Amino acid sequence: MADPFVVVGGDAAGLSAASKFTRERPDDDVVVFEKGEWISYAHCGTPYYVKGTVEHITDLLSLSPAAAEERGIDLRRNHEVVAVDTDAQTVTVDHHGEELVQPYSDLLVATGAHALTAPVEGSSLDGVFTMHGLDSAAAVRAALSDPGESAVDTTVEAVDTALVEKYAARDPPETVAVVGGGYVGVEMAEAFREHDLDVHVFQRSDRLLPPFGEAVGERVAEHMREQGVTLHLNTEVERLEGESEVSGVVHENGHVDVDMALVGIGIRPNTRLLEDSPVELGDSGAVAVDDYGRTSVDGVYAAGDCAEMAHTVTGEPAWVPLGLTANRAGRAIGQTVAGDPEPVGSISGTAVVKAFDLECGRTGILDHEVARDAGFDPVSKTITAGSRSGYYPGGDETVVTLTADQETGRVLGGSLVGRDRAAIRVDTLAAALDGEATVGALERMDLAYAPPFSPVWDPILVAAKVLRGSLE
Amino acid sequence: MADPFVVVGGDAAGLSAASKFTRERPDDDVVVFEKGEWISYAHCGTPYYVKGTVEHITDLLSLSPAAAEERGIDLRRNHEVVAVDTDAQTVTVDHHGEELVQPYSDLLVATGAHALTAPVEGSSLDGVFTMHGLDSAAAVRAALSDPGESAVDTTVEAVDTALVEKYAARDPPETVAVVGGGYVGVEMAEAFREHDLDVHVFQRSDRLLPPFGEAVGERVAEHMREQGVTLHLNTEVERLEGESEVSGVVHENGHVDVDMALVGIGIRPNTRLLEDSPVELGDSGAVAVDDYGRTSVDGVYAAGDCAEMAHTVTGEPAWVPLGLTANRAGRAIGQTVAGDPEPVGSISGTAVVKAFDLECGRTGILDHEVARDAGFDPVSKTITAGSRSGYYPGGDETVVTLTADQETGRVLGGSLVGRDRAAIRVDTLAAALDGEATVGALERMDLAYAPPFSPVWDPILVAAKVLRGSLE
Repeated sequence: MADPFVVVGGDAAGLSAASKFTRERPDDDVVVFEKGEWISYAHCGTPYYVKGTVEHITDLLSLSPAAAEERGIDLRRNHEVVAVDTDAQTVTVDHHGEELVQPYSDLLVATGAHALTAPVEGSSLDGVFTMHGLDSAAAVRAALSDPGESAVDTTVEAVDTALVEKYAARDPPETVAVVGGGYVGVEMAEAFREHDLDVHVFQRSDRLLPPFGEAVGERVAEHMREQGVTLHLNTEVERLEGESEVSGVVHENGHVDVDMALVGIGIRPNTRLLEDSPVELGDSGAVAVDDYGRTSVDGVYAAGDCAEMAHTVTGEPAWVPLGLTANRAGRAIGQTVAGDPEPVGSISGTAVVKAFDLECGRTGILDHEVARDAGFDPVSKTITAGSRSGYYPGGDETVVTLTADQETGRVLGGSLVGRDRAAIRVDTLAAALDGEATVGALERMDLAYAPPFSPVWDPILVAAKVLRGSLE
Repeated sequence: MADPFVVVGGDAAGLSAASKFTRERPDDDVVVFEKGEWISYAHCGTPYYVKGTVEHITDLLSLSPAAAEERGIDLRRNHEVVAVDTDAQTVTVDHHGEELVQPYSDLLVATGAHALTAPVEGSSLDGVFTMHGLDSAAAVRAALSDPGESAVDTTVEAVDTALVEKYAARDPPETVAVVGGGYVGVEMAEAFREHDLDVHVFQRSDRLLPPFGEAVGERVAEHMREQGVTLHLNTEVERLEGESEVSGVVHENGHVDVDMALVGIGIRPNTRLLEDSPVELGDSGAVAVDDYGRTSVDGVYAAGDCAEMAHTVTGEPAWVPLGLTANRAGRAIGQTVAGDPEPVGSISGTAVVKAFDLECGRTGILDHEVARDAGFDPVSKTITAGSRSGYYPGGDETVVTLTADQETGRVLGGSLVGRDRAAIRVDTLAAALDGEATVGALERMDLAYAPPFSPVWDPILVAAKVLRGSLE
């Protein structure tokens, strides 16, 4: 019998690949090794579980272990792949201390990423959390309720029940430090305010949500202040302090007493498994792959948060760990390994985030330095326009930034922020990037108009008109 | 002194052209002849004025006569252009019975369209309305209030004050017939239900909103019935009857007593002015133009609801009278006449409409017969998918239909319907059409994902995946 297709990691990329493979080749074997117990969960949903919008953590699971096995996937949880031998085509797996060696025909590395905490001293104190993983999310939610009234049912909602029960038994915190003003920081600030906490967000740079650009960052900052969040921008956190539990944040300009802290300062690709292998990493530190997700070693693929992808605008490798691309690349690799090669597609860095009542979206390249590095001569314009006809209620001022190449007029990227359907409008820009549209073509696009949904000139068209004017 | 740029019609296309021209050439003259008194109003807003969402009819005016003149436009209201002599380069204008002859350097015909009533016998009875024009909208709104409590202030909200006051003085109707189940019929049914009328919609064909395709039509029909609207599909109206006021609808299957009727069975381009001129009309009956809005006669342009435009997908002339294209074409022609040629762009037939709580959108070519006539081999798929992550509240089942060419895989058109951000998502498809995307490219687009706004696989991506599967 042939060796199986082996997948390392039981989350979006890994299970998408395994599912697709087994659908195409029901008689062939696919084995998924997952080091933990949870599989295939919606990481992006965890802030809404903490907030209480989502009732049970189990609602975030998109595929149960039983369903995975029903699909014909040989799923091994609590199996950590600790070594790869690409010559012998085997992986070494640790299962509760016992090692086994598994040969593979093809290998997919879908090991994901981990939350950074290292630069923040004191991150291992009690009461300090990251939002990477369901147990951590369950612990944060448990910590927010009064003792005995925890919303977390540890019999089904936690694997690390001791951790969750520890926090469930405590009085809820009153003041929380959110270290980092990216997605996680902004979403968690909203979640904590929902529980009436005094929220302090610390951001090293001068703006929130840096990948969304200045206009979005400024509007979100203004809105979060209105929502009662204290923002410490341009403020480096020196350390979290406390005896065993966190009791304060020491930052470059002073000190804030807190009784909880959430560190969301970014993630890094999990590539340790490949350290001694010939599989090459890219400049970003994530695994380098080609258009089909193939690494530098024959028969070894990588996908999801641990891998690079080609950028739609530059064509160059980029590391932008997001959910859709993990799912898509995994699925494509499953099909390719099954014998029907399918490209993994490119990534534009399209991202949307809710910041209290604001919707934010971004795609492509906004940063001028990044654009120049890719050989473009970037020019940007920011406009404000209504999301609906002015006479129709419910609209909101929508701020759009567009960036284009001065010489060719090609659209390089854009962002939007506003209360009314601003986020989903970014898909129009993503589609324009995919078609390599110029600003002139974008300005002439036949977009929708009806008073309840859009004015005659959609904010995107207004931005294109203004940017084009400045290109001429 | 040179002859002026003459514009016939003071609505979206005409005033966009005049505004752009005078901005580019402030020292040159532009004269706009408008046969009526109202200029530049948001036709698409009239149903929401009748509904009461928009308080005053004056809220629908996007440019006041005073503002137009401030821009340097020589605006002549109550001036009807009754003849064109393209050899002499003059137009003959009727102003309250007096005729004047105006020479032109360039001429823009932006005469718009008119509502069809002719096929419905009895349309001239009292209590029968169309929704083409502000006075008609004001009269409908006045008719819906109790005598003495009219929401319409005739001193500023009506030109035909006698008409409006006549209906304001009457008891409001109880039952209304809406003849026609297109945009106007669907929007007006919502407006009438808001005023608690018993609403009967008559539609000759077997579905509502025909340009949106079967899936949208069916879901809208179901929803409108839930909202208490009586639908008479597949039902031809034979006549409206009554002494002097409308009192009933005679249709092929019976009779309904009504005390008001709204006829919305379509519009036709206003081209009578050109009847004896050498300016050529297209097969649609609207004025034929090239990529710059130029007609077959030198120096004569046409734009807006009276003119054709090139279709984005087929490249062939099409007549799709909508607001954005009127504005865009007018603006481009103003720039071209000013000496800086600008293409008018193409039209994809992108349209969105609100049907009570449902949002509907369509773009491109959905109809298989139309696609085959244009040389394509069309195939369509309809899917239903959530608008948000399943665990996040507020989402809705979104129905997406996509049509593509079997041979090339090129996306030809699509439609969406759902309660949650379905309409604006059509812009993503419009941008894809503009880039001549294939279904495979659409499936691989990096669209937005965040639980409050979209699931991992946006409904559009799900539709592309399914349609692509059927192409292979």
